[in-house]
Amino acid sequence: MTARSLRFVLYVDGLLLLILAAAMAVPMVVDAAQGERDWFTFATSAGVTAYVGGVLVFTFWGDGSAIDRRSGYLLTASAWALVCAFGSLPLHFSSLHLSFADAVFETMSGLTTTGSTVIAGLDHLPPGLLLWRSLLQWIGGVGIVVMAIVMLPALGIGGMQLFRTESSDISGKPVPRVVQMAGLTIAVYVGLSIACAAGYGAAGMNFFDAINHAMATIATGGFSTKDASIGYYDSVPIELVGIVFMVAGACPLIWYARLITHRRQALSEERQVPALLAVLVVAVAVVTVWNVAENGMPIGHALRVSAFNVTSVLTDTGFATADFSAWGSFAVGLFFMLYLLGGCAGSTAGAIKVFRWQILFASAKRQLRMMLSPHRVLVTRYGRKAVEDETVHSVRNFFFLYLLTLLLLTLLVTATGVDFLSSASAVAQAMANAGPGLGQMGGPAGNFGAFPDPAKWLLSLAMLLGRLELSTLYVLLLPDYWRA
Amino acid sequence: MTARSLRFVLYVDGLLLLILAAAMAVPMVVDAAQGERDWFTFATSAGVTAYVGGVLVFTFWGDGSAIDRRSGYLLTASAWALVCAFGSLPLHFSSLHLSFADAVFETMSGLTTTGSTVIAGLDHLPPGLLLWRSLLQWIGGVGIVVMAIVMLPALGIGGMQLFRTESSDISGKPVPRVVQMAGLTIAVYVGLSIACAAGYGAAGMNFFDAINHAMATIATGGFSTKDASIGYYDSVPIELVGIVFMVAGACPLIWYARLITHRRQALSEERQVPALLAVLVVAVAVVTVWNVAENGMPIGHALRVSAFNVTSVLTDTGFATADFSAWGSFAVGLFFMLYLLGGCAGSTAGAIKVFRWQILFASAKRQLRMMLSPHRVLVTRYGRKAVEDETVHSVRNFFFLYLLTLLLLTLLVTATGVDFLSSASAVAQAMANAGPGLGQMGGPAGNFGAFPDPAKWLLSLAMLLGRLELSTLYVLLLPDYWRA
Repeated sequence: MTARSLRFVLYVDGLLLLILAAAMAVPMVVDAAQGERDWFTFATSAGVTAYVGGVLVFTFWGDGSAIDRRSGYLLTASAWALVCAFGSLPLHFSSLHLSFADAVFETMSGLTTTGSTVIAGLDHLPPGLLLWRSLLQWIGGVGIVVMAIVMLPALGIGGMQLFRTESSDISGKPVPRVVQMAGLTIAVYVGLSIACAAGYGAAGMNFFDAINHAMATIATGGFSTKDASIGYYDSVPIELVGIVFMVAGACPLIWYARLITHRRQALSEERQVPALLAVLVVAVAVVTVWNVAENGMPIGHALRVSAFNVTSVLTDTGFATADFSAWGSFAVGLFFMLYLLGGCAGSTAGAIKVFRWQILFASAKRQLRMMLSPHRVLVTRYGRKAVEDETVHSVRNFFFLYLLTLLLLTLLVTATGVDFLSSASAVAQAMANAGPGLGQMGGPAGNFGAFPDPAKWLLSLAMLLGRLELSTLYVLLLPDYWRA
Repeated sequence: MTARSLRFVLYVDGLLLLILAAAMAVPMVVDAAQGERDWFTFATSAGVTAYVGGVLVFTFWGDGSAIDRRSGYLLTASAWALVCAFGSLPLHFSSLHLSFADAVFETMSGLTTTGSTVIAGLDHLPPGLLLWRSLLQWIGGVGIVVMAIVMLPALGIGGMQLFRTESSDISGKPVPRVVQMAGLTIAVYVGLSIACAAGYGAAGMNFFDAINHAMATIATGGFSTKDASIGYYDSVPIELVGIVFMVAGACPLIWYARLITHRRQALSEERQVPALLAVLVVAVAVVTVWNVAENGMPIGHALRVSAFNVTSVLTDTGFATADFSAWGSFAVGLFFMLYLLGGCAGSTAGAIKVFRWQILFASAKRQLRMMLSPHRVLVTRYGRKAVEDETVHSVRNFFFLYLLTLLLLTLLVTATGVDFLSSASAVAQAMANAGPGLGQMGGPAGNFGAFPDPAKWLLSLAMLLGRLELSTLYVLLLPDYWRA
């Protein structure tokens, strides 16, 4: 890594901190208008963040956009870490007095659109803090989709090179086309957020709740303004709006733009969305039948709670309208698996993601067929495209690293004294950026406040690892990275 | 598959049934000598088995050894299924009156050297039945190592092509070298068994128990003649003998032969054994410290129970001297991981196996380094050898199929009403062919009798899948397999 590209990394980090500081002004204004003392916390945090951001920007100004592959990893990792550190300031210093571990956990959970919370008593929180949590998710959501379009394909993370286009080369000056795609994606994101807020409003939410839940829905985040999450409203229309926009948030955002510009092609070529919808329908049906047969729910109620909570888990959002960890071991097992599945690449959803499963299955079938005819040349197909061998390797390696990380972090969390199921499900949902877990602790009926501090740090790391698709961080651990 | 090779498959199946029938004569003689009624069950079972085997052998005699790749898979799968079906006859029709599901579970557990049992009251069982359970493991153990030497490298299962030698081509007449290697391995196996029995005898076991436990130890099986397993004897010397020979059984058997013929080379080139021993030492140390610090054990006692039970889990044996599922969530998490690790390829131990982990880690490192320098050519190394790309694919695909199977079977077992942790650990240990699980049910203090019948069938399937390294069975599910 050259000194020049390191300077550019710090410059971009500074820019992002300035944006974060500007975002802090929103809850500041709201709290000030309502006479809440926390406006001062937001003002101070914004000041500190803007100062550090400003110093970085002005110190490293003017080196153009000299980014190379190596600095791309550092940029991605350092941006998330810095934004998380500064984003946690208002939570730590506010009237909530969250400990440092709690504030970082909550901020990481927001930025990575996980949606696990350590805060109890949301219903009585000052509006600024609620808005800040929602904003963290919303900003994190933008960060994720832009990262998925601009950085990951170019960096070749976990098979994302599949989505590489002629404009994915990030070295040198940014190509106008990448900027255009990122802009289009952000426009779609904003549009969907407004539509979602309008939907919630029309379904009966008040203005403030509608705005907050819309940000958490499109980001597939899952922070609510109520301890009882969406269950608080007990409203079918609100749940329907939630289902529609959770699914919308789990689809590739660039796809919507292509639906407008190249409708036919977008409909026929998209492979992830139909698979996601198929899994959703099957999972809802299975859980509904299970809830009727085993838990004795009336069919209408079973369909309603299954549809909402399965959608929430599958899209890695994290809203809840029921304590689904109490639905029996089969439901727990199924939800565990849905955590791993994840939404589509290029969306705000997390986990292993639909296209990777598709490639894993397609290449497994190819491997078995190769066993029959070792001398035949067989390719793995994704839609009509043949997938490059290196992409298959990349996806398979991602799967290995994902499961290995899941196992090792689970083991470390059990060492802090948490029971095995709570540990495994907490790590699985944290890595999937998916909201509540399934164990006695951190389930949909509770929150993560009861986890010991070391476990919270481990779960924060799990969220970041999941969000950055593992390799972005792991590559920084190679001695080779820091040489030359 | 040609009709000729199908005939050959049935011919070999018949031969194996004749061997099985001969083995049934051993417990028959023992029971007859002791005046136990079950001698008649063994005699009848042997008669039926010998009859079917004889019919197959004489009907399909004389087609030579016309085996090809396709029939190799069918041979492997059908041999295990048939031997299991006939091997369960004595258990089903004996004075124990095991249900069909129980008898098949127990037989599969024996043949695959898993060691999970559904039988309570072992201490009062007639000797013939105890001996039959031990024999099933011992025969299964031979089957496994011969299969690992002769079939798997040739069939290219899960990276086993790494161990392909110039003599691994199984098409056409069997090469003298393969026969010689298989013979050598069996000789080592018999030698180790005798040494182990002598060890147990010297350490204070009676003749009958020493024979039985030696067969279960070398096969890394884990069936005991006591409900309390090795814990019954409460003897340090017996536990030491157990540790030494469990580890011996988890090392590649052909390696011992090479230690004699090519000592220098065998010591310097063997990669799996040092890694296995390193993991063992670290795991014992960690569990000992955990047991002292968290469970308040005196250090000597902690070391003793940790050493024995960790060795038993890591080598996928399944003996126990303590209820290690009660050692706390960290120990449970660690044992869960040790189940997945497994012993060395070419041994009687199961699970993912040491060499696969080595290749997974080496290729993951290569993948990360490729991210830094995408245009550099980097190879994955195993020892001094460069690993072929197709082998890496094969290993990575094995890992995917293994975890996928683990997740799906866990889900199916939870659907029978078993709790999540018991399901996950029962499936993990069944696929690893490793003995007791970690949940409330099927733990080291209990047995698998409490599982519902459908769960027992699923676990029997899991044992078979694990033993046949998945692909051997999965390839039979391809429509392509049955075409042409």
